[in-house]
Amino acid sequence: MKSVVLERKGALSLRDFPEIDRSEEVLGPHDVRIRLHTVGICGSDVHYYTHGRIGPFVVEAPMILGHEASGTVIECGAAVSGLAVGDRVCMEPGIPDPNSRAARLGMYNIDPAVRFWATPPVHGILRPTCVHPAAYTYRLPDNVSFAEAAMVEPLAVGIHAATKARIRPGDVGVVLGAGPIGLVTALSALASGCARVFVSDIAPKKLEIAAALSPAIVPVDAGHEDLAARVRDGTDGWGADVVFEATGSPRAAASVFGPLAPGGCVVMIGGQSEPVAYDAGAAMVREARVENIFRYAHVFARCVGMIASGAIDVKPLITRTFDFSESVAAFDIAAAAPPGEVKMQIVLPQ
Amino acid sequence: MKSVVLERKGALSLRDFPEIDRSEEVLGPHDVRIRLHTVGICGSDVHYYTHGRIGPFVVEAPMILGHEASGTVIECGAAVSGLAVGDRVCMEPGIPDPNSRAARLGMYNIDPAVRFWATPPVHGILRPTCVHPAAYTYRLPDNVSFAEAAMVEPLAVGIHAATKARIRPGDVGVVLGAGPIGLVTALSALASGCARVFVSDIAPKKLEIAAALSPAIVPVDAGHEDLAARVRDGTDGWGADVVFEATGSPRAAASVFGPLAPGGCVVMIGGQSEPVAYDAGAAMVREARVENIFRYAHVFARCVGMIASGAIDVKPLITRTFDFSESVAAFDIAAAAPPGEVKMQIVLPQ
Amino acid sequence: MKSVVLERKGALSLRDFPEIDRSEEVLGPHDVRIRLHTVGICGSDVHYYTHGRIGPFVVEAPMILGHEASGTVIECGAAVSGLAVGDRVCMEPGIPDPNSRAARLGMYNIDPAVRFWATPPVHGILRPTCVHPAAYTYRLPDNVSFAEAAMVEPLAVGIHAATKARIRPGDVGVVLGAGPIGLVTALSALASGCARVFVSDIAPKKLEIAAALSPAIVPVDAGHEDLAARVRDGTDGWGADVVFEATGSPRAAASVFGPLAPGGCVVMIGGQSEPVAYDAGAAMVREARVENIFRYAHVFARCVGMIASGAIDVKPLITRTFDFSESVAAFDIAAAAPPGEVKMQIVLPQ
Amino acid sequence: MKSVVLERKGALSLRDFPEIDRSEEVLGPHDVRIRLHTVGICGSDVHYYTHGRIGPFVVEAPMILGHEASGTVIECGAAVSGLAVGDRVCMEPGIPDPNSRAARLGMYNIDPAVRFWATPPVHGILRPTCVHPAAYTYRLPDNVSFAEAAMVEPLAVGIHAATKARIRPGDVGVVLGAGPIGLVTALSALASGCARVFVSDIAPKKLEIAAALSPAIVPVDAGHEDLAARVRDGTDGWGADVVFEATGSPRAAASVFGPLAPGGCVVMIGGQSEPVAYDAGAAMVREARVENIFRYAHVFARCVGMIASGAIDVKPLITRTFDFSESVAAFDIAAAAPPGEVKMQIVLPQ
Repeated sequence: MKSVVLERKGALSLRDFPEIDRSEEVLGPHDVRIRLHTVGICGSDVHYYTHGRIGPFVVEAPMILGHEASGTVIECGAAVSGLAVGDRVCMEPGIPDPNSRAARLGMYNIDPAVRFWATPPVHGILRPTCVHPAAYTYRLPDNVSFAEAAMVEPLAVGIHAATKARIRPGDVGVVLGAGPIGLVTALSALASGCARVFVSDIAPKKLEIAAALSPAIVPVDAGHEDLAARVRDGTDGWGADVVFEATGSPRAAASVFGPLAPGGCVVMIGGQSEPVAYDAGAAMVREARVENIFRYAHVFARCVGMIASGAIDVKPLITRTFDFSESVAAFDIAAAAPPGEVKMQIVLPQ
Repeated sequence: MKSVVLERKGALSLRDFPEIDRSEEVLGPHDVRIRLHTVGICGSDVHYYTHGRIGPFVVEAPMILGHEASGTVIECGAAVSGLAVGDRVCMEPGIPDPNSRAARLGMYNIDPAVRFWATPPVHGILRPTCVHPAAYTYRLPDNVSFAEAAMVEPLAVGIHAATKARIRPGDVGVVLGAGPIGLVTALSALASGCARVFVSDIAPKKLEIAAALSPAIVPVDAGHEDLAARVRDGTDGWGADVVFEATGSPRAAASVFGPLAPGGCVVMIGGQSEPVAYDAGAAMVREARVENIFRYAHVFARCVGMIASGAIDVKPLITRTFDFSESVAAFDIAAAAPPGEVKMQIVLPQ
Repeated sequence: MKSVVLERKGALSLRDFPEIDRSEEVLGPHDVRIRLHTVGICGSDVHYYTHGRIGPFVVEAPMILGHEASGTVIECGAAVSGLAVGDRVCMEPGIPDPNSRAARLGMYNIDPAVRFWATPPVHGILRPTCVHPAAYTYRLPDNVSFAEAAMVEPLAVGIHAATKARIRPGDVGVVLGAGPIGLVTALSALASGCARVFVSDIAPKKLEIAAALSPAIVPVDAGHEDLAARVRDGTDGWGADVVFEATGSPRAAASVFGPLAPGGCVVMIGGQSEPVAYDAGAAMVREARVENIFRYAHVFARCVGMIASGAIDVKPLITRTFDFSESVAAFDIAAAAPPGEVKMQIVLPQ
Repeated sequence: MKSVVLERKGALSLRDFPEIDRSEEVLGPHDVRIRLHTVGICGSDVHYYTHGRIGPFVVEAPMILGHEASGTVIECGAAVSGLAVGDRVCMEPGIPDPNSRAARLGMYNIDPAVRFWATPPVHGILRPTCVHPAAYTYRLPDNVSFAEAAMVEPLAVGIHAATKARIRPGDVGVVLGAGPIGLVTALSALASGCARVFVSDIAPKKLEIAAALSPAIVPVDAGHEDLAARVRDGTDGWGADVVFEATGSPRAAASVFGPLAPGGCVVMIGGQSEPVAYDAGAAMVREARVENIFRYAHVFARCVGMIASGAIDVKPLITRTFDFSESVAAFDIAAAAPPGEVKMQIVLPQ
């Protein structure tokens, strides 16, 4: 079977990829072998396709894409317990060194040695099978579908953001940006205790999708409304307890303190390639706390649990599904960034 | 109009109560006058009725009962802003000294000088009108009914408990006790990020009510099942991240660490009249954190917000409503503690 | 007796100031009247003198300077308990509204309604006597001198910063800036659990003073050394757990993440008049937490306690003392910012 | 060379111990081999000697004692970086599985699979050499002696307790018990931000030693004084912000809330073999937080740093030093628990 290979910037193939077999497919005692089932297309996959790099990570050799994945265990290493052949699973794409200083402190996501799928030179998993540490492979309950399970990876970003925010029950939240990460963050904030979440964007279609997710989501058209004023009006002048920056836009990042309440928290999710203009005075008079986050840690099993119990419903975010054979076309559609799509997924033959 | 007066242990009257007019009905500049609408019957009201005391608080003179209340503002003090005549409101029953050391630190609930409705010698509000500080009176949105608003007081206990637990998204919770406080705590834990909550009790009828509240609530019949084993089985052997003790039973309180995960948190809600047997060894090997809570602080507006947005639905907990003229009968029913009732409320004539 | 009056930008007088008597000297029931003893000269006092404004606060009428003060109670309001005539005290210069939302939450320092000494239009206390709320007046133990007590106000900034940082025992700290606030912050960080504190500045004389305060202070000449590299070298490559920005310089503020360890905390103390260039990428890969602070809350009594017990020694920071009659000359010296001076104080006649 | 072997309850030998060579002396790639230098005698070592067991841990075969140790690296595994032959080091006696769930979360101390020196059936290190993971071996700066380094293990308990307490600068502390753990806890609390620490015990000699450690330590003779009253008197009636239970006595554990301030924290350090009588009412009205701790995690390097910088001075706690050849006599003295001894150490031939 074939793999989805980014040959170089702008060139994507669905082809055999024999190179990988030798180096990455050896099953260690603590590993499992997984047949991939569903893989979501992430903005970073698309960005490698269209730009050939993300910051310091440059595609210098053909690389398989994909890191939002679910599948089925087909082989277990000798020392694996807790997983068995046939288990339906989802997988955490970053593999840390368990003995690194950061990992030992419980912050494995910021261990610089993490190997992360589809981040050069590490291959992704739009391919028939992969080998993965059992410790970063999560069994699915029967009522969580492969499609939902492939949403765990992006949801993990939202849940990690909500965790770092230390939301208190009844908080009012704001999410800047109604893209996939903005939407999982809004859902995460609501599931984590927010009473209401204002979601702002400049694309009316995205706001429409956001508003349909929950009556507790308040859409704000940032192109025509003053978000800070709108939030103050909706909170007796006090402001929002937590503001999530999920656009990656320097302009949005510069505005995060406007809608923030005294003593509130800002979570910076969106990556920024350049320094942003930080309104230190506005931050100071509010005694704002700012949490900067990088991916996630320790939340995959939590996400699975919240999907299984109904605490979070990710199904409305899956707007389109492709057959594996249509993968290149799917990426081309994703590259066009149609405002009505949230998450597009690819299903592999089983 | 009349008031519900506890004359002494066991003797309740619905009668004129002229004594109160002189001392408590003066409207200060920061106060509002409120016409009461709906008042819930709390276990503590019933306990004063049946026992004449709770711990050091003894009924030594006729006292009006009731402290879970909603109503309508009918007069505002000269310095009041933010509230107007006609506003529908609910009221926090404890009034602290804003200059006490505890209040200045933000912990007004543990200021020993707090005056709390229906706690001797302070009168409650099963009466036509009352005067209350505007700062502890909360305006209701149109979509929150008087009945829901009178549920804010018990809900506040659950939300305060969930806040102190510092729930992280996806936590697994346990609530010991499916009485009114156990149920608001389970709802609060779910709304605050728990993926699932095990609720244990020995009364099957109460577990049935609990289970009907949410698919994420797992009822456990503590009379026939080993709760700790059941929780371990349901969590891959790890245990629950947070355990809420909401029974007030010394036996239950002695068992709180059994179902607790390493690094987990126990919240002691239920009051205990005697020292409980604390399994320090079980607490130690888990490095358990134990939070002991007393009423609530800073959560009324949060509760109103969560009810208004749909984050929490308290309506299923209101199982019976009485006319004010039936108040004495209502208390007699409450004193019998029928297992099928959660919260009974009294509606005053308007 | 006279007062130190800032007539307008650049014009300072030591003169009678009868205007104040009528409006501010009425003793309320919760107030005390204090005879001032020692008053420190703060950078903000000097800035009003030299610039006539700080941000939005403009000197538009003659204003008495001074807000770092100690003195003796000479009269007590009718409702005052806990203080008596003759008590030696220090005073917190900001007076909040105890019923404001921020104050009730325990964050009175960010109540916008705070009245703060020597911030237009509120007068300072370089005058014979003042009236102050007893709740913000702190009795001194016998072993704390008036001079030390007048250091409590600047020390409070450092202690508040250290509190917000949530220092864990053995943390490595960095303080950018060896001015008075940088030095109290370094002392506070050490007293709050830091094992070592790197202090950077470009003035060798200031670094010399810093280094003399404690063997656990490591001076770094920011004009000739790369602070980030120096800190990494001194921490096995890991970085500092907490970085305090105490310069107010935009350039320093832009560099705060360089020396920071993964999972570390930055505390922004120095006020900034313009947005600073925030290296969001560097913050992200470390999952930095940033705490922005504004003055202080709830720390005056703590500072008095730490001085009394010897946990912090502020005496080496008091480098020069003036007689009240020399006040104008003292301000002129302070305006010249001699690098060898840390804190200059004025002693009033008793 | 010989080892200190507990043959069985009450029988201690200094003898060759060939059994260990085969099983525990293989140097893995991530290990170092260490020549032991100084080993402290801990109460748990003595307890195994006198009782043959601690709770579920029973001495069923000859076992080498000792777990508070410093030494010199004499061989490094192939993959070791950061340590070199000749490095002076101290060692953390508990070795967790880095892939356990608790270890990955950063709580390796509560991983049930931890192997801990001198806890049956794991041997201790009163022997010439040992093999240890480099990750749990800490290099010493030149100014930290072997004797001080062998104090890191008990100090780690105090520092971990102080960390869990989340001491804020200026807190008032109480330590119940002036044994070795009580004393390191008092020193840790002061170094972590406490302004003052009340230390209570019933042995006047121990209180004398405590008082000599710091002017900020206030000794309280628990046999003749009411600790709670004494603390209230010394804190304007407010109480202590944090209370450390370091006696292991059920009676002391039952009294922890008496001296505690509203909103304060109790840290339970002392192990308890039976449930203790927990005054839930006293805990409730204060909203006490209780932290139960087990050994320590992530603090060895911090302790070394604090000793090196002078933040903590452990030298006064080392009251007696024995030559290795005197080991059995040393244990017999320790078993008699002379009140004037705090920490006795054994020095091995080099």
